[in-house]
Amino acid sequence: MRESTFSIAGSIRSLLEQKKYNSLKDILTTMNPADIAAAAGEMSETELPLLFRLLPKAQAADVFAEMEPECQEQLIKAFSDSELALVINELYVDDAADLIEDMPANVVKRILKTASPDLRREINEILRYPENSAGSVMTTEFVALKPEMTLDEAMTYLRRTGIEKETIYNCYVTRKGVLAGIVSLKDMLMAADGTKLIGDIMKTDVISVGTSVDREEVAKMLSRYRFMALPVVDDEERLVGIITFDDVIDVIEEETTEDIAKMAAITPPEKTYLHLGVFDLFRSRIPWLLLLMVSATFTGMIITGFEEALAAQVVLTAFIPMLMDTGGNTGSQSSVTVIRALSLDEIGFRSLPQVVWKEVRTALLCGATLAAACFCKIMLVDRLLMHNEAVTLTVALAVSLTMVVTVVVAKFIGCVLPMLAKRLGFDPAVMASPFITTIVDALSLLVYFTIAKQLLF
Amino acid sequence: MRESTFSIAGSIRSLLEQKKYNSLKDILTTMNPADIAAAAGEMSETELPLLFRLLPKAQAADVFAEMEPECQEQLIKAFSDSELALVINELYVDDAADLIEDMPANVVKRILKTASPDLRREINEILRYPENSAGSVMTTEFVALKPEMTLDEAMTYLRRTGIEKETIYNCYVTRKGVLAGIVSLKDMLMAADGTKLIGDIMKTDVISVGTSVDREEVAKMLSRYRFMALPVVDDEERLVGIITFDDVIDVIEEETTEDIAKMAAITPPEKTYLHLGVFDLFRSRIPWLLLLMVSATFTGMIITGFEEALAAQVVLTAFIPMLMDTGGNTGSQSSVTVIRALSLDEIGFRSLPQVVWKEVRTALLCGATLAAACFCKIMLVDRLLMHNEAVTLTVALAVSLTMVVTVVVAKFIGCVLPMLAKRLGFDPAVMASPFITTIVDALSLLVYFTIAKQLLF
Repeated sequence: MRESTFSIAGSIRSLLEQKKYNSLKDILTTMNPADIAAAAGEMSETELPLLFRLLPKAQAADVFAEMEPECQEQLIKAFSDSELALVINELYVDDAADLIEDMPANVVKRILKTASPDLRREINEILRYPENSAGSVMTTEFVALKPEMTLDEAMTYLRRTGIEKETIYNCYVTRKGVLAGIVSLKDMLMAADGTKLIGDIMKTDVISVGTSVDREEVAKMLSRYRFMALPVVDDEERLVGIITFDDVIDVIEEETTEDIAKMAAITPPEKTYLHLGVFDLFRSRIPWLLLLMVSATFTGMIITGFEEALAAQVVLTAFIPMLMDTGGNTGSQSSVTVIRALSLDEIGFRSLPQVVWKEVRTALLCGATLAAACFCKIMLVDRLLMHNEAVTLTVALAVSLTMVVTVVVAKFIGCVLPMLAKRLGFDPAVMASPFITTIVDALSLLVYFTIAKQLLF
Repeated sequence: MRESTFSIAGSIRSLLEQKKYNSLKDILTTMNPADIAAAAGEMSETELPLLFRLLPKAQAADVFAEMEPECQEQLIKAFSDSELALVINELYVDDAADLIEDMPANVVKRILKTASPDLRREINEILRYPENSAGSVMTTEFVALKPEMTLDEAMTYLRRTGIEKETIYNCYVTRKGVLAGIVSLKDMLMAADGTKLIGDIMKTDVISVGTSVDREEVAKMLSRYRFMALPVVDDEERLVGIITFDDVIDVIEEETTEDIAKMAAITPPEKTYLHLGVFDLFRSRIPWLLLLMVSATFTGMIITGFEEALAAQVVLTAFIPMLMDTGGNTGSQSSVTVIRALSLDEIGFRSLPQVVWKEVRTALLCGATLAAACFCKIMLVDRLLMHNEAVTLTVALAVSLTMVVTVVVAKFIGCVLPMLAKRLGFDPAVMASPFITTIVDALSLLVYFTIAKQLLF
């Protein structure tokens, strides 16, 4: 059993240094392409092509497809034209299309020049679909059968052409290019009689997606139906490609990373963390920080508005961070829960009343508990233990009352804003902690000072 | 093309009411099990068994397996013993084991009583593995071949037994139960000579996982290697089960939901949002809120410590929310980015110096920009536009200086704490916004008052 490969990069480097190429070759044949690609990510610019040339021909394209774009670019620059042609023409079409999308213009030119006319045509096919659409993630290497084929004919066809296909386990049946049915290799194998027609054993009720459907939607469908692949059809219902489960797993991970970034007020980055430069990080973070900083000045204005009251009762200031933080935390809990439920399609906009009712009751429970704890803490710790004379019963009451109202308001806003965002066609993930916190801060201080003024002055 | 099915629940209900059972049956045969299960979730307690009994026998178990636990429980209660036996014994073993885990004790007893002895043994096999381990998510229904079988024999064996297996596309080869190799159906099909031995065409370099490996680790491996299934072996390297890609997609989604919940200071819930009661929500949220509220009182104590300074310069209070919020937001950006990179294995603890160096430089850029914006805003808006005489150049300077220090401290803490947590064996997801915010709040106020005291008094 092998689990992690991260330690192997070091061994590879020292074998390269010692020029023990034969041992390296032997080790590489025992490794999986994904592991070799990961190790390759830790090689220097000179080591990388050296390592790659040691790979068995059959593995080279697979390893290349698994590499980070930065590595691929370095390698392509080191390749001769014939080396490049060898690798490129071995790639699956969807991997080749990904590569083209990731490379700078001059590298793209070189790739397209060395690609075979067939591959070039198929790459261009995929590239004309908008980013993140089903068309842009599909592969065109699927098995298409005809309904009038017999099972034996279909199996012979599979044996002859299957090696180049991304999967042969789901075969699609077309009539003049239009998707007419699906037949799994399992069904074909289980059918005893080889003279039966494909058209007779195929399932005609095929679930497919259009080329322009968002890739996130595709991922949801595949995971919902537990399919190994989903067929992609054009506007005339003609089969143009398939999307396989492994690409969907990548999509799910990328979309989650994007959502999590948005929830933390970051513009989703295009690269993995270690490949992001300081300026990339700066650019993806500063707009949101500026926006939120400006929004937070409203909260400051509220404080300025109640400056006189604060000057008279400076003790009130000490509870501002606790009220603001608790409001922010409790609002974030609701917003993040709702955002996740929305993104998993567990709830939709029509669930709004149900969600609000649930959150408000939860808020009352949480608010009452927090207020009670807060009241006891203020009276016992601040007043009795620390002998802070300014902390009166009325102050404790004002803070606790504010707590209840803040929690209810925070959870209400926390669940309503993401659902409204979704309804209006925005990404609800943006309505997470940072924005909710900013809004709730202002409201909680408004409530605090209003209550304090009523009780104390 | 069918995309969403949510509207169909209504039609089913009205057909049920009108007792148009034959039309309903026809519609159900055209639907996918996952869609029927989703629609079933919206049926009442009386409609649900009615609908279920209309399903074709072959589909019933598949639909049942896709249902939410609440629906399954309702159905089981409505089932006669023979109906229950029919459904249970048609389930895949891993689905049956999931069911057992989700049901209350009295229902479990009934299920085990009706299960066939074989199924019961296999369920118990899976249930003795710890929760979230590879053993607990695997299925025992895999294809095991012998190395001395010929290809023709293997194909005959597949045809005879394959129908009950979760997948026949990856076949595993064992010697005395010990995993010896893997052979894909594609390889078997492509090999022209049927007298060849399985032992000669199998790949012996198999990647497998132990039964006790965490399911998250399994998901990462399957997605890394783009496998359709991963074999699970016991301590003696004997093959005991397989984990298929569709289960891994579920694991990825559940683990992500858990991570996101933890990042928002929520104990990850066991059910989907709409099935959570108000008390469930309360219980998963209140401990963290209490903990964070108590932590926030430290921030209050810092304010109390500087009360005299604040009383003399009340204007300082107005900038507290902006400084606290910006500190929290900028710290969250770093912590969330690092947590996600950790969970995708893009970085590990050994990347700490690299990460800190990157974050600190980003922080200096962000801090300088924010401070400049903040300084201009204070001088132009607060002083010139709003004629607030208390806002002097020195105040603006103190706030802007604090801003730079806060951002650097926040990003430093934001990236270091999750990595330390990971290193110490805790889940880094806990070190997200709420905790970072609480710590950064206290520090930023300490910095603020110290700087203000130096400049103003």
